[in-house]
Amino acid sequence: MTEPTSAAGGSTADLLALLAQGLRTYDLSVPMEIGMAQSPNHPQFRLTMPRRHGDAVRADGGSAANDLLVTGTHVGTHVDALGHVSHCGQLHGDLSADDTQRSGRLSALGVEEIEPMLGRGVLLDVAGALGVDACEGGYEITVSDLEATVAAQGTEPRPGDVVLIRSGWGRWWNTDADFVGAETGVPGVGEAGARWLASLGPRAVGADSIAFECLKAGAGHALLPAHRVLLVEAGVNIIETLALEELAADGRHEFLFVMTPLHLVGATGSPVRPLAVVLS
Amino acid sequence: MTEPTSAAGGSTADLLALLAQGLRTYDLSVPMEIGMAQSPNHPQFRLTMPRRHGDAVRADGGSAANDLLVTGTHVGTHVDALGHVSHCGQLHGDLSADDTQRSGRLSALGVEEIEPMLGRGVLLDVAGALGVDACEGGYEITVSDLEATVAAQGTEPRPGDVVLIRSGWGRWWNTDADFVGAETGVPGVGEAGARWLASLGPRAVGADSIAFECLKAGAGHALLPAHRVLLVEAGVNIIETLALEELAADGRHEFLFVMTPLHLVGATGSPVRPLAVVLS
Amino acid sequence: MTEPTSAAGGSTADLLALLAQGLRTYDLSVPMEIGMAQSPNHPQFRLTMPRRHGDAVRADGGSAANDLLVTGTHVGTHVDALGHVSHCGQLHGDLSADDTQRSGRLSALGVEEIEPMLGRGVLLDVAGALGVDACEGGYEITVSDLEATVAAQGTEPRPGDVVLIRSGWGRWWNTDADFVGAETGVPGVGEAGARWLASLGPRAVGADSIAFECLKAGAGHALLPAHRVLLVEAGVNIIETLALEELAADGRHEFLFVMTPLHLVGATGSPVRPLAVVLS
Amino acid sequence: MTEPTSAAGGSTADLLALLAQGLRTYDLSVPMEIGMAQSPNHPQFRLTMPRRHGDAVRADGGSAANDLLVTGTHVGTHVDALGHVSHCGQLHGDLSADDTQRSGRLSALGVEEIEPMLGRGVLLDVAGALGVDACEGGYEITVSDLEATVAAQGTEPRPGDVVLIRSGWGRWWNTDADFVGAETGVPGVGEAGARWLASLGPRAVGADSIAFECLKAGAGHALLPAHRVLLVEAGVNIIETLALEELAADGRHEFLFVMTPLHLVGATGSPVRPLAVVLS
Repeated sequence: MTEPTSAAGGSTADLLALLAQGLRTYDLSVPMEIGMAQSPNHPQFRLTMPRRHGDAVRADGGSAANDLLVTGTHVGTHVDALGHVSHCGQLHGDLSADDTQRSGRLSALGVEEIEPMLGRGVLLDVAGALGVDACEGGYEITVSDLEATVAAQGTEPRPGDVVLIRSGWGRWWNTDADFVGAETGVPGVGEAGARWLASLGPRAVGADSIAFECLKAGAGHALLPAHRVLLVEAGVNIIETLALEELAADGRHEFLFVMTPLHLVGATGSPVRPLAVVLS
Repeated sequence: MTEPTSAAGGSTADLLALLAQGLRTYDLSVPMEIGMAQSPNHPQFRLTMPRRHGDAVRADGGSAANDLLVTGTHVGTHVDALGHVSHCGQLHGDLSADDTQRSGRLSALGVEEIEPMLGRGVLLDVAGALGVDACEGGYEITVSDLEATVAAQGTEPRPGDVVLIRSGWGRWWNTDADFVGAETGVPGVGEAGARWLASLGPRAVGADSIAFECLKAGAGHALLPAHRVLLVEAGVNIIETLALEELAADGRHEFLFVMTPLHLVGATGSPVRPLAVVLS
Repeated sequence: MTEPTSAAGGSTADLLALLAQGLRTYDLSVPMEIGMAQSPNHPQFRLTMPRRHGDAVRADGGSAANDLLVTGTHVGTHVDALGHVSHCGQLHGDLSADDTQRSGRLSALGVEEIEPMLGRGVLLDVAGALGVDACEGGYEITVSDLEATVAAQGTEPRPGDVVLIRSGWGRWWNTDADFVGAETGVPGVGEAGARWLASLGPRAVGADSIAFECLKAGAGHALLPAHRVLLVEAGVNIIETLALEELAADGRHEFLFVMTPLHLVGATGSPVRPLAVVLS
Repeated sequence: MTEPTSAAGGSTADLLALLAQGLRTYDLSVPMEIGMAQSPNHPQFRLTMPRRHGDAVRADGGSAANDLLVTGTHVGTHVDALGHVSHCGQLHGDLSADDTQRSGRLSALGVEEIEPMLGRGVLLDVAGALGVDACEGGYEITVSDLEATVAAQGTEPRPGDVVLIRSGWGRWWNTDADFVGAETGVPGVGEAGARWLASLGPRAVGADSIAFECLKAGAGHALLPAHRVLLVEAGVNIIETLALEELAADGRHEFLFVMTPLHLVGATGSPVRPLAVVLS
């Protein structure tokens, strides 16, 4: 990308004027609906309408419908709070997992502590750099792959960025293929790739698969080294089940990344609707 | 506000550079937790941890906790989809409510149709302009009040803005006072105020109370004229239970408003975590 | 069976004395737990512990744990209310389905109208009479099969009885086999068998499969003629996913059947724990 | 009561013949519906209809409606599993609460271990014996009260019975009065009464209030000595929120008590629909 051309002014009005020039917004979330692919480890997504129009009608002819939402917080496009994973009884920052979860919710490292994200995002289109539609199930994205992707794209991640990894696996969402990958495994970074990502000092990382990790065929979620490295050791949030196909197809490797996790006090995760925004 | 000082450039890099200068972000949402104030018309918010750290431990010492979320979509800070309210069997755009809700979710006008919001927001601090901490329960915010607030602030709403009304009622959130206002009523705009708002051509409107409307003491949700005017007639989304106290205290009347409703297919509403952003 | 040997007295004390002689109780329900086989048409069973021992401790050292139950009412061993199924917009007794379900629950024919059952039950062990461990998936139990079973057993159903059909399919519960039978189909009565059952004037009928019906391989729940005949036309409740293996193994074809559906106002079904009781 | 008049025979046929003479069945449960009184400690009862008649129609004109049930297991008429309460980290039988609840459900003392109840029940109509419609909120039912009730009724509890205490508080169910008793307190036995009950060797005990215990006005559930004595020390299940008014009005002090808790693996409680049955 090119460097900023204007000595950008500092006012909110400047910002609004810039945005008013016309945005192109990419929705990086998958649609949440009953029957969507999700990990069996988490409560099933279920949206129901307890009250429908006409069930009760006000004197003036008005009526309202509403919803009951039952769901895990790690289904659909979602973000992991730092307190989602522990290692040997310790959470990030050496907090005791037992102490932190007493009372039935996280008293620290919950999803409400994730600062809303509004800053630079970069897409590392690994599948694109490797010249494949999608990495195979079980394929481990290596440090070489990541470095080759950066080089091919010319998009240098900077500290504080949100870094999104595209394996291409997202193209199987909502198809007959098994997005969860119980039998095929799922492509993703392993421990080495996670360390490389952590070394960038990112604000958060994400991927277009359910578990972010490289899962070997048939092995399930036996080990989750990338979660340990990123959440527990480095304190970096992980975003999963991202929709990155359109962004990649348009070659958008740098953008304004916007994400606001729900204000769920003490939760281990939150469904989110992240955006990539570019000036059109 | 002042006019933009720079002839703003057009690139995404400009935008990122501008944002990188330092933002002040106001969280306009209330914390969602068990026991929070909510309308009894909607399913109770309940966040539970089915799996805690240590329940199952992987071979390498790793463990993960997760959540089960059960909630109405009109609790906490939330946005109403256009399909939330009908009038005489019709939704916005003269859609048949019966046809649209068949199958148990909205086939049109659901919350997934709300475009993510990333543009100008204005706060109309009515309580501030009236010189009160908070309007009384049952007080109807009049068109005169709204016009006086615009004049006092010098903040002119423009088409496409998100317009937030502060009655001051938000200060009762999480206090011993009755935020729901079953006995006291709740301040808000009536039909006239809603029409005035609709005439601005806003992207959305919001308020710091549960129902946005003026509710008279003891009358409950007998009639919801503002919902009819805004959702059904004008096609303007309504945001409720906003946290506006800090924004008002800092005198922030114009800002970048950011809101991304969840990607809930066919839902009548969504919990949200809206932001007001200014360059610091 | 033999005829009663005593001119049975009429007092509650007699009844208690008789029961005090020693009962053999068969639990006809399957255990309800996360991951159990269930129809994808119904909300997933999920039992969670929001509060665990030690989360909060009273001054005297006491603590309590509790549960959150999220479930469909047609999962596990359950009973169908008459209002569960409609035909051409009509429920049993020519009630309008639309009118009856307005407000989001059944105003008539709900599960709370099912009288608790405490009377004669008979097991028709069709698999036993056919000399197979279990009928094949998709096998339709014919009227001849039913009549042959009655003859082989010498157990004549009488009006007011609860009549339980054993296909043997219940042996696949909690095994690697596919209890739901999406690919294999499921054995059960068809329309003719349902009419034969209805002609007996039973209090209720039941079976050891999820849907009671004969489901052809791959056809899913395309048509449910037995539900129409029994629920809509005859007004006979249907009990599904019964555990009948032990009862059959012990040759218990006549027993006291006990079942008390939950007092769920307006529900279309209820999980139940039915019993077969014999004097030992 | 009178002694059995017949030398009761021993066959299941005798039992069925006796029951066929005509039963009078008392439903001891309260109706479960949205908005019913319940303790705020437990998840709110919510029954919803995800699919209504007509949402999907089969080729033959058939359609089915179903439910989503979200509820605590200690709401409405329900039974406490022994594992519901711990004392100083120990459950009944000196089991470690921590060990037993690991994995998020009870691995012992869960509600599925409660044997279905089908035997003698006695009603101790304390309010009746005291000559009041209902004991006052906060009134502690004493051992003298219990003994006086037994004497007045002439109903001697025996080992293995289910013993139901009527305080009369059940008459406030579904009235404007506060059944939960947050401000008034609730009548019930204290530690002494619980010990007296435990000394009877009962199969289970129950009462017509939410918490079984004597709760002092404004004290909430500060201490629950009767739960400790009965569940933890004596291993006696407790049934709460029973509907006993009709039984008492008819002077039925001895009956066949029938109760079958749901087969919820590892749950701390279960909603139930208990019956009192007498020969009419």
